[in-house]
This record gives sequence, C-alpha cells and structure tokens, in this order.
Amino acid sequence: MMGPHPAVADVRRAIRESLSDLDEGSLVLVACSGGADSLALAACLGFVAPRLGLRAGLVTVDHDLQPGSRSRADDLVRLSPSLGLDVAEAVTVQVGTLGGPEAAARIARYAALDEVSARLGAVVLLGHTRDDQAETVLLRLARGSGARSLSGMAEVSGVYRRPLLGVSRTRTEEACAALGLIPWHDPHNDDPRFTRVKVRQTLLPLLESDLGPGIADALARTARLCRDDADALDDWADRVYAEARDLGTGLSTALLAELPAAVRRRVIHRAAVAAGSPPSALAAVHIEEAERLITRWTGQKGVDLPGGVGVVRRYGRLMFTSSLS
Amino acid sequence: MMGPHPAVADVRRAIRESLSDLDEGSLVLVACSGGADSLALAACLGFVAPRLGLRAGLVTVDHDLQPGSRSRADDLVRLSPSLGLDVAEAVTVQVGTLGGPEAAARIARYAALDEVSARLGAVVLLGHTRDDQAETVLLRLARGSGARSLSGMAEVSGVYRRPLLGVSRTRTEEACAALGLIPWHDPHNDDPRFTRVKVRQTLLPLLESDLGPGIADALARTARLCRDDADALDDWADRVYAEARDLGTGLSTALLAELPAAVRRRVIHRAAVAAGSPPSALAAVHIEEAERLITRWTGQKGVDLPGGVGVVRRYGRLMFTSSLS
Repeated sequence: MMGPHPAVADVRRAIRESLSDLDEGSLVLVACSGGADSLALAACLGFVAPRLGLRAGLVTVDHDLQPGSRSRADDLVRLSPSLGLDVAEAVTVQVGTLGGPEAAARIARYAALDEVSARLGAVVLLGHTRDDQAETVLLRLARGSGARSLSGMAEVSGVYRRPLLGVSRTRTEEACAALGLIPWHDPHNDDPRFTRVKVRQTLLPLLESDLGPGIADALARTARLCRDDADALDDWADRVYAEARDLGTGLSTALLAELPAAVRRRVIHRAAVAAGSPPSALAAVHIEEAERLITRWTGQKGVDLPGGVGVVRRYGRLMFTSSLS
Repeated sequence: MMGPHPAVADVRRAIRESLSDLDEGSLVLVACSGGADSLALAACLGFVAPRLGLRAGLVTVDHDLQPGSRSRADDLVRLSPSLGLDVAEAVTVQVGTLGGPEAAARIARYAALDEVSARLGAVVLLGHTRDDQAETVLLRLARGSGARSLSGMAEVSGVYRRPLLGVSRTRTEEACAALGLIPWHDPHNDDPRFTRVKVRQTLLPLLESDLGPGIADALARTARLCRDDADALDDWADRVYAEARDLGTGLSTALLAELPAAVRRRVIHRAAVAAGSPPSALAAVHIEEAERLITRWTGQKGVDLPGGVGVVRRYGRLMFTSSLS
C-alpha cells in the first residue's frame, strides 16, 4: 500500500502535533479562504480529526470586496463534506477602512471568526505558513522594536492555532495538487500596493539570492528563538514586578538598578501600563527616558509618559502618577 | 562664535560618551583606513581627547592587497599631527585566504590591532557606523540564530570600542567635508563579489523603499534591544548553571524542567561546552535534541553532541560525558 504524498504527510503531521492536547470530541474549524494554504489545511484536518477523536469543520469569510466572493464561499461550504468536514459556515462581513485595506480586512475577518468560535465553542486553525512567518518577521524588523515583535505570529493564541508555521507555502501547494484540489488564487496576493506583497515578490527572493538560500527558514527560526527569549524575559519581569509591588508604592530604585537593562525596562513598562499609559502609545524611547531616572540619575525632574502618566524619583523609589485620576 | 558643523558635533559627542569612563592619561587609538568613517573618528578624537585628559593616536593597517596601499598608510601617519594625534603607526600585514577574502583580511587586521594595543596599552576605536550595524544585522538574520547573533557588533568588546554605532555613514562623510578632509574610497566597498556590498547597495535601499524609511535605524535599534535581551538571558543562565553545578554532577532534570525554554537551552549549552563540545560546532538543533531528554522524555537513548560529547538522562539528572577524556 502506498503512503500519502510527502507534502500531504507533512501537513497532516503538523496538524496532529498542533492538536495533540485537545479533549476528545472538541470541535476544530479551519478558517479557509480557498487558497492553497488553508485548503490543504482543511483537507488534511478532515483526515486527521476523526483519528484523534475530534470533530472537524470549516468556516470561510466572504469579505465582499471582489465580485464572485460569495459564490466562492458557498462553493467551499459545498465542498466541505467531501473533505471530511461535518460543520461548514460562510460568513459575509463588512470591511471598514480603518488602518488601510489590509488591516481593515483583517479586523473584520477576526471579528467574524471570534463570533463563530464563541458560538460553536471551537478551536480555529489558521493556514499561515513558514513563508507568511518570514514575511511577518521582515515587516516587524522595519519597526525596530525587539524580541517580542520579531517573534512573529504565535503557534497558539487564544482559540487560534497555526499548525503550518513550519511548513512552506510550496508544500501546501503540492499537498493540494496531490489531493486533486484546485486552490483559489486571491488577486490581492499579487497586488503590489500591499507592503506584504512587495516583501513576498521582491524582498524575499532578493534576500535569498544575496544572502544565500534558506532565508525563509532562517527568519522563521529567528521568530521561534525570539519568542522563547521574550517569554523568558516577560516571565522574569512579571516576577520582579510582583515582588516590587509587594514592597509598597512605586518601584525600589535599588532593586531596579541591579537588574539587567532588558528586565528593568520591562518592569518599568509594566508599572507605566498599570498607571494608565496605553501600551500602543508607549514606545521604547519613553521607557528609556524613565530608565534614566535610575541609570543616569542627576536629580532630574520627572518624565512624562503617554496617557497623562508621570514618573518621578522620590526617596529611593520610582513613583508613577496619573493626571487623569 | 560659530559652533562646529552639526555632523562634527555628532561625532565628537559620540566619542565623548564612549570614552567617559577612561582614566586620565589613557591612550586611545583610532584604527583608521582613511575612509570617511574612521577619518572623521580620527579627526574628532584629536579634538576631544585632550579635553578629556586623554592621549590620542592613530593606527592604520596596510593590507598590502592593492597598489599604493603602503603610501596611503604613510600619508595617514603624516596627516596625524595636524589632526591632533600624537601617536601614529602604519602596520603592513600579510592577508591569508582562510574563510574567504573578507574574513582573511579581518583576521589579519585584528591581529595587527591586537598587537599594537597590547604593546602601547591602548584602547582602540573602530569606525563602524549605524549603517555597518544595519548591514551586520541583515547578514546575521540570514543565519537564523537568535538574539545574540542579531545583536550585531558590540559598543565595547575588550580593548575595542565603536563610538559611531549610532551615527550614520552620511554623517561621517559630512563631518569630513566640514573639516576639509578628503576620505579615501576603498574600491572593495563597491565590489559586488562581497556579500556585504550586495547588502549595502541592493538590499538596504530596497528595504528602505518597500518597508518605509528609517530601516537602518530600525535595524540598529533591533541590535541594541537584542543585545540587552541576550545579556539578561545569559546572566540568568549563568546563575542557574552555577547553582546546578553546586548540586553535584550533571544537571537536575527537575530544575531544568521548570525553566523557560530560552534559559533551559542556554544552561544546556553551557554544560555541553564545559564537557568539551566546541561552541562553533554546537548548533541550535543539537541543543534542542538534548532538551528533548527533558521536555519529551520517553526513555530515549542519549544524544551525541559535536566534539565527542554525549548526553544521557540518569536518575533525574542530565549527565554530560566526553569520549575524548
């Protein structure tokens, strides 16, 4: 007896590893656009799920931005039973304009997926591949914002899971071909107005030719290592912050002074957020300015942080105040 | 009275900050190729050093690879007094072939600089700029080897210091122009056989146009953040490793199991190196395989690491053995 095509075997194995902790009878849905990545994921979930004692389904989001999108969604729903998927839903969403076309579509899509997941009590699988992860790391790199940012997309995030972060896009295309499935090709994936498309079509191939082969793999590995680093440092900062708060108001400057810079800044960040500074507005430069009250103390005045939060150094403690309270 | 040109002021400030901890009378040498970066550094050191009570000089390495390189080195030595530099040496080196032309030249250069620094008891300043740092981060990114690698070049490393990691290459060119100095343009800097030249000429401009302006800044900032992260995690791993060794032979599996992955892997790395595994051969995959003796323990046999080092799990401890001892 012949085994499955190697690409199909890769996708199935990735799904099995991703779902190994779920209770029997759990419902798992693939968020499926009809593209090669999520189509391979859907077909392989239909095979794997019953063997793990799980229920499997599909949800497809019609963004209503291109002609024929609703009928494509309906086609996917009709295809589902033949893939071994018992539940199938098509949801049409209204895409706004906030943050540009990519961001607006993403916001609408996740709102719909959140709703379906909550209503059905389901885990949702996303088809992001190793290549998507590499693109994400490159895009994040341009921000210059450290390990957490470089760690890219998480394998598990709430109800969402990304089993394919270690599988290449080419592999999912091969899996579809081996299974006789014809993926839909989203024209947005070739539209050079999107930064991600430029990264995919121009930057990554150039990186590959200039820096040597395997760049997508290297970027995905960087993401994993950075995620582990960021997790460990967050863990350390959480413990120090909890300990510091037990000692009374503000943070002890003696305690902060003896920490490595990477941990000290994370502790200051926690205290600033707790005092009301919005994380989205709180940049590295703000934290570094507050840090100078410890590392370059010359009796300076306090530091202003976003959200009306002030930091001053008084009697050996860093005190965080809110002008809004 | 007019102040100095802003670019000159930037370079001087960067030097002052870099040297603020040196004892009076210390000797500081600039490793100067005659290029804009190190020429600006040399000229500004000549101005700054006496004001900080330091002695200043220049050392230039003639790689003897291009016609006229010795006379260019001699020209720099002759120029030095007018820049306020009291010590000046030109050293001719023999460049080998090990590791390719870039690496061989670097090895010969640092050997010569090491010798001069040791003989004269001097700190050596290197002219690497923010743009060099950005190129380094991109080159390291292709390796996919985590925070320490992404942290690029250090501001301080032994006797070497890099005051200009926050200053752009353009700024050093402006400083030379403002001081009436004509930098030497190394033809190797345009030779597309060198990976670094491809990164500089093709990749960084494309990143800038595709991902938005400020990419060199973002990469340099990433390097700083990653360096701080790596320092903090090394610090943590050092403490755990010291503690684990106090408890007897090998590493306690219970202790390893409760560590965050990023710290656990660093501790295993330390134990492997201590057992004789060469750091240059010890890759992430080796450490991850040894880690599975903790995180995926199913009674598996031991793991072989480079350098004839074996790891086995016995009686709740990870034991490292060397076949060479």
